[in-house]
Amino acid sequence: MADPSTAPPLTRASVEAAHKLIEPYIHRTPVLTNATLDRLASTPRTEAELAGTEWAGRTPARPVLRFWFKCENFQRVGAFKARGAFHAIERLKQEPGWVENGGPEKGVVTHSSGNHAQALSLAARESGIAAHIIMPSNSALPKIAATRGYGASVTHSGPTAPEREAAAAAVLAKTGGRMVPPYNHPDIILGQGTAALELQAQFLQRTTANDKRKLRAIITPCGGGGLLSGTALACEGTGVAVFGAEPSFEGADDARRGLETGERIRAVTTTTIADGLRTPVGEIPWSIIHDRKLVRGIYSVSEDDIKRTLRLVYERVKIIVEPSSVVGLAVALFNEDFRSLVEREGGEEGWDLGVVFTGGNVNLDILGSLIA
Amino acid sequence: MADPSTAPPLTRASVEAAHKLIEPYIHRTPVLTNATLDRLASTPRTEAELAGTEWAGRTPARPVLRFWFKCENFQRVGAFKARGAFHAIERLKQEPGWVENGGPEKGVVTHSSGNHAQALSLAARESGIAAHIIMPSNSALPKIAATRGYGASVTHSGPTAPEREAAAAAVLAKTGGRMVPPYNHPDIILGQGTAALELQAQFLQRTTANDKRKLRAIITPCGGGGLLSGTALACEGTGVAVFGAEPSFEGADDARRGLETGERIRAVTTTTIADGLRTPVGEIPWSIIHDRKLVRGIYSVSEDDIKRTLRLVYERVKIIVEPSSVVGLAVALFNEDFRSLVEREGGEEGWDLGVVFTGGNVNLDILGSLIA
Repeated sequence: MADPSTAPPLTRASVEAAHKLIEPYIHRTPVLTNATLDRLASTPRTEAELAGTEWAGRTPARPVLRFWFKCENFQRVGAFKARGAFHAIERLKQEPGWVENGGPEKGVVTHSSGNHAQALSLAARESGIAAHIIMPSNSALPKIAATRGYGASVTHSGPTAPEREAAAAAVLAKTGGRMVPPYNHPDIILGQGTAALELQAQFLQRTTANDKRKLRAIITPCGGGGLLSGTALACEGTGVAVFGAEPSFEGADDARRGLETGERIRAVTTTTIADGLRTPVGEIPWSIIHDRKLVRGIYSVSEDDIKRTLRLVYERVKIIVEPSSVVGLAVALFNEDFRSLVEREGGEEGWDLGVVFTGGNVNLDILGSLIA
Repeated sequence: MADPSTAPPLTRASVEAAHKLIEPYIHRTPVLTNATLDRLASTPRTEAELAGTEWAGRTPARPVLRFWFKCENFQRVGAFKARGAFHAIERLKQEPGWVENGGPEKGVVTHSSGNHAQALSLAARESGIAAHIIMPSNSALPKIAATRGYGASVTHSGPTAPEREAAAAAVLAKTGGRMVPPYNHPDIILGQGTAALELQAQFLQRTTANDKRKLRAIITPCGGGGLLSGTALACEGTGVAVFGAEPSFEGADDARRGLETGERIRAVTTTTIADGLRTPVGEIPWSIIHDRKLVRGIYSVSEDDIKRTLRLVYERVKIIVEPSSVVGLAVALFNEDFRSLVEREGGEEGWDLGVVFTGGNVNLDILGSLIA
């Protein structure tokens, strides 16, 4: 990875510069709207629906919401992770002496069983750079095959964090390659922020100046926090508020709880179906989310709410997304605290809300059971 | 329905006029491309894959294909049927004396258990016109609920064609309403053709004049033939060839067989999973497809090929489509006769091929079993 000390400043201008670097490699993914989901979100939940939730007995909120879905499930490798990975690779290529010192042959290294592994493999291959991926030996075979399919060399490790890190250290020592972590690095964060830049531009293209509408906020899922913090940078100074969304299951809402206490939570053990969000938020993302106060709030939702939202997206938006993708939309549909905020601040005019759908890599063999 | 004798001529100009009429009501659906599917389609099948098919022992074809997917699964009510229905309604509204004679109150009538029922209900409601839908009493409950959800009044009939027609006749007599058939009417055909008009324009927008690429052909599924014949009209005189696609299961390929013998096949009994394509081709569509020779060929595929294609679309394109939707793509991927044609005529440069994905209304509860 490019030395963090030489990284560009964590600003909106740096997200714009990242976008210029990666534009030749990534898709400008479409933004979809959906009248049915807008209507559903703008209909108050019933008291019966709230019974048994933490909002039981409260008057249901009456927000008015218009969604703008940024569809990173259509991104290369099926996830926004391509943005950060291509940016990390482009930044490495800019490093003085990168080629002379054998950078491409030594290659890049990461540990991931998910979308980051595939994204980094693809980005490395397109620049003729070797990629070494450490995957837990219990990873799903299709994921290993897909990563190998992008030309990466896969090394297996035990499933625990220390085993994984030991394996990574060994590969780094052997290859002389450079580590590219999945979220805790400025180049990754700046790359992920480019989705929100595009979303802002696409919103403007589709609304006219004289209808006075403005994008009021963007909500994204939060796992390691790369996407959420990058989005926050992309919105700094624009007047677009940024919110995060997490599953509440088995403490997966570490960032939300961390914001409450002011202390980052460093370890999480959860089996939420939103498998991209099982990670605690990283240190650099946290410095943007919490210390710089660039994220206005983080809200959480139950597993059932995630499944109901997944089914709604399949039925109504007609796109394939993975469970982690829909956690932001689930908050807008089912979290009464967030909905009350929109009612209070948006009033009758309501909010135009950007929602990032982060990826579409779902195991089709279990898709039926996910939404049953 | 507007009197067919007053219908516009079946020409490309009439499809353009239909498009102007319905533009305020329908979505201009996106056109997606996909590098992985292009690569798959442009890779020759292996001899092992061809063993056991009708092409066993033949040298696998080597076509070069670039797909342009017209995504009518994102259309209103989730299917292209909205185009024909809105056009039929707009044409009725233009009829002299329509309002004075109580047209809106008498309403429109059709029998359908599928997308046409919902499309007509929606189109009627948006113009304040009553809709009466005859559905077989064994229709799936969610379909009945969805049709009622658009404000239609639903009448049940027995499942056979004579029972259905008797029920429709009774409703027509009682209401004084107008029949709007699902495909065998000029207004419906002209409406369905608008998808291909948009596809041609969207292709041009995304290719530059100096790269000399041209849309060589469009392939659509063929059930009753409304979409296929409308597409043929939309392409007449443009140099864009039009092909049809059908399932071969239990004789569902009636239009393909009819083209072979020169005689339209009037009855089909099939349980193909492509449930939108279980209907024999209608008389007026046939006059365009066969008599006027505006469709160059019709090709068929097996149930397995349809399922494999469905899974590929979910995995790679990341969109929800119903089985009927992918029959055209299945032909391009798996029918060696079609693939040989593309190899022969396209050579190394290959073909840019428009593929209409017709709808996305799949029963999510059985989706898993469809692609297992």
